Amino acid sequence: MSSSDIFIGETIGTAVLILMGGGVVAAVTLKRSKALNAGWTAIALGWGLAVLTGAYIAVGVSGAHLNPAVTVGLAIQGTTEWSDVPLYIASELLGAMIGATLVWLTYYGHFRDHLTDPQILAEARTGPEGLVEQDNAPSAGPVLGIFCTGPEIRNAVQNLMTETIATTVLVLSILTLGLTEGLGVSGTGVLIVALVVAGIGFSLGGPTGYAINPARDLGPRIVHALLPLPNKGGSDWGYAWVPVVGPLLGGALAGGIYQLAFA
Amino acid sequence: MSSSDIFIGETIGTAVLILMGGGVVAAVTLKRSKALNAGWTAIALGWGLAVLTGAYIAVGVSGAHLNPAVTVGLAIQGTTEWSDVPLYIASELLGAMIGATLVWLTYYGHFRDHLTDPQILAEARTGPEGLVEQDNAPSAGPVLGIFCTGPEIRNAVQNLMTETIATTVLVLSILTLGLTEGLGVSGTGVLIVALVVAGIGFSLGGPTGYAINPARDLGPRIVHALLPLPNKGGSDWGYAWVPVVGPLLGGALAGGIYQLAFA
Amino acid sequence: MSSSDIFIGETIGTAVLILMGGGVVAAVTLKRSKALNAGWTAIALGWGLAVLTGAYIAVGVSGAHLNPAVTVGLAIQGTTEWSDVPLYIASELLGAMIGATLVWLTYYGHFRDHLTDPQILAEARTGPEGLVEQDNAPSAGPVLGIFCTGPEIRNAVQNLMTETIATTVLVLSILTLGLTEGLGVSGTGVLIVALVVAGIGFSLGGPTGYAINPARDLGPRIVHALLPLPNKGGSDWGYAWVPVVGPLLGGALAGGIYQLAFA
Amino acid sequence: MSSSDIFIGETIGTAVLILMGGGVVAAVTLKRSKALNAGWTAIALGWGLAVLTGAYIAVGVSGAHLNPAVTVGLAIQGTTEWSDVPLYIASELLGAMIGATLVWLTYYGHFRDHLTDPQILAEARTGPEGLVEQDNAPSAGPVLGIFCTGPEIRNAVQNLMTETIATTVLVLSILTLGLTEGLGVSGTGVLIVALVVAGIGFSLGGPTGYAINPARDLGPRIVHALLPLPNKGGSDWGYAWVPVVGPLLGGALAGGIYQLAFA
Repeated sequence: MSSSDIFIGETIGTAVLILMGGGVVAAVTLKRSKALNAGWTAIALGWGLAVLTGAYIAVGVSGAHLNPAVTVGLAIQGTTEWSDVPLYIASELLGAMIGATLVWLTYYGHFRDHLTDPQILAEARTGPEGLVEQDNAPSAGPVLGIFCTGPEIRNAVQNLMTETIATTVLVLSILTLGLTEGLGVSGTGVLIVALVVAGIGFSLGGPTGYAINPARDLGPRIVHALLPLPNKGGSDWGYAWVPVVGPLLGGALAGGIYQLAFA
Repeated sequence: MSSSDIFIGETIGTAVLILMGGGVVAAVTLKRSKALNAGWTAIALGWGLAVLTGAYIAVGVSGAHLNPAVTVGLAIQGTTEWSDVPLYIASELLGAMIGATLVWLTYYGHFRDHLTDPQILAEARTGPEGLVEQDNAPSAGPVLGIFCTGPEIRNAVQNLMTETIATTVLVLSILTLGLTEGLGVSGTGVLIVALVVAGIGFSLGGPTGYAINPARDLGPRIVHALLPLPNKGGSDWGYAWVPVVGPLLGGALAGGIYQLAFA
Repeated sequence: MSSSDIFIGETIGTAVLILMGGGVVAAVTLKRSKALNAGWTAIALGWGLAVLTGAYIAVGVSGAHLNPAVTVGLAIQGTTEWSDVPLYIASELLGAMIGATLVWLTYYGHFRDHLTDPQILAEARTGPEGLVEQDNAPSAGPVLGIFCTGPEIRNAVQNLMTETIATTVLVLSILTLGLTEGLGVSGTGVLIVALVVAGIGFSLGGPTGYAINPARDLGPRIVHALLPLPNKGGSDWGYAWVPVVGPLLGGALAGGIYQLAFA
Repeated sequence: MSSSDIFIGETIGTAVLILMGGGVVAAVTLKRSKALNAGWTAIALGWGLAVLTGAYIAVGVSGAHLNPAVTVGLAIQGTTEWSDVPLYIASELLGAMIGATLVWLTYYGHFRDHLTDPQILAEARTGPEGLVEQDNAPSAGPVLGIFCTGPEIRNAVQNLMTETIATTVLVLSILTLGLTEGLGVSGTGVLIVALVVAGIGFSLGGPTGYAINPARDLGPRIVHALLPLPNKGGSDWGYAWVPVVGPLLGGALAGGIYQLAFA
């Protein structure tokens, strides 16, 4: 696989992933969206289908990691060469930033209306809706949940444990695809991984919002900090390391389990 | 592919697409429907399954574009010949008009009850439900949302941007199918595209209702203007160009991205 | 295909279809069910997955028609021999009756509690929930919707039209499966048909509850009339011919469209 | 298949199954979870995707039974050797216990908050939410439903009948997979079984919460009894035999039906 293939596949694939993943959170939370309050089933299915779309676009080009935790897991497995890892991760992060910017463009008017609504601004700190609640986070803004994740109960050890467990499941399911005849990283395999991500959303997303992907969280958080959004509030940088470190630990753990138990 | 195959596949396939797509909006919005208020998850899944049904019926005959934006993208890619493009588009538009008429027949009694209910008619302008709200659109009628799309926040540039971005994702995912072994425009490929459309509904449909298909919007809008529905109100022709031009731009943009980055 | 294969596959397959299809209506409507009020998305997905389960069990044995309208369409197409049609239909009807009886056994205590609740019995005529409302049907009982379909707006011509259109879509999608390489009546084909049925539920089920299958409606209606349920009310025999004739017309129409346009 | 493969595949696969399956119940029931009150559609889809994830991880290693009822059915069919059955069942039970422990770790803070909330503790006996209601079960605790199942209407014969019927459907659908070309216990077959489980949840889960798997119920119930959860209440041991015996009867019944009708 050439460097150019890795760059193109991962950047475009991750951009589509985040455009659609961030998009579904925008769709169910932003004022006047047609999908307002569609709830957690829409969130979990929407993120799963975001993975499906981004991954199908990229899988024939770069293998569609779209996630540094997956890249690390595949490197431990030996499927991806360690020398390609930095380019994969950089492309994923760039793609995530592009995707988050496209969410902003897609929902431009809705961001503006939402962020200038006095009632919404007042509620942003107390978080009555659950989805974007930023507990004990005075700096978290009312649309931050569209860009990146935040915990419902803020405790670094617990949040890290949740993200690590959820990412281990994701990456282990990817690493074991090749053990089943007719699967592997392509075609039906992508469909399965997308459904696994939907499943993780339903099952393991309750405490932290399942980043399970360092690029998915960090890239859009940077974009949130940079975008000229009125009343956007803080980007909750105090939490930002958790959805980076937890998923990387999970990816490495999955790689280790694979090498010990399945290889 | 013969002209007759193109005509038959695209007309029947698009008719089924619009029958089921328009049908799900009728199902969740019309008075006394068993699916009343089933919400956005039903809408997004229903439209995805509408694509799946129409596309499986047509894919073995005409390739199942069912969408002028897809036809344009495939022509730029070189998969479809430019000389076939007019017949594809004409068949898609005709099919969409047939499909919208079939929605009316399927929900005949419900249209009549809905459009003669004084409370519903009074609410049609203020749009309390979100789904069919026609912001700043005094001419928009209470069932127009079953036929065609309308924006929640009316701004031509923003609405055009939203439709262009969403359609680019759709068409790019179709153009890249052939890059993955075992996919391509057939079998599993149709399932993927249907799921991508469901995903776009969840993620990018909040602002404009995701036309992402000029025939899907224009054909049923013409039918709305022609049908003898009581109190149907206007067909919002002032907005009609947006879901035609935006998706065509998106299809062309996807074709360009494919040629530049993936070809 | 031997007579014994047809009998076994269609009887068991249709029994599973109706056990799970009737089951999901029981699940969302019966008092004290854990799925109470899960709504139309659960209904549509549940029926689609009921088709998937019944059809996968039967497809390798009898081809998994599970529906006289499908049998008729396949006979017109020439896939099924006309001489096998009576056995197919009889087995489907028997299977549907077995399935409806199994729904009763599965939800035994819930039927009893539901049918002896004074408030539920009082509401049964006015139908406040939409799902089981039997408009203008003084003889319709409070659990009849678990067994068979009924219209929201009672008008024979309109109800017949709705059932005919919806069944035409279903059967046409089955008849055209063979046109796409790698599909046909098996494996992935069953998954597609199951998703088509889910889609028809979302889109075309609003007016009549989408019988789209004479055996699915008539068999359980007979069982409803026979079962010793307290306060069960009438079986709405006045409507019973519509979900038999409409689907058969739809199956024949799909067969005709296939022969004219696709063969 | 080596003993080591059976042990690794079944233990890890069942652990993932229960982590995600118990996880979705935690997600929709525990205080402050982002998915709180997401409802039965989330439950049924979440459990189906839990099966998908656990089964894809294990299928290439141990065949992914993940369920003693499946193991028994496959042994009756002759696919699994009877001498391997004890190791399969022991590994499934161990995996289920590991999975239940991981649910606790993933939702650690949420368990603590939920179990120290005075209002939730007061409501636990009266069960206002339906999902975790433990009728006539003074010993049932407020989070027991995250670990194991309980009936809405407590009647051993009826509950046993419900679990037996539901498990028969599950195991019969697995035993017949091999009859269809291109399926069998692998690839697409796993996707089908996962969707069948989702369907059983929608359709047959209303009365007892569909254990349909002795390990899925007994393993987590043991963990519930052992974990140091404050105010956790009893583990409802009086009911514990039903979701063990019922599914085993169902698995054996499916094996018998297969041998009689399909072999």
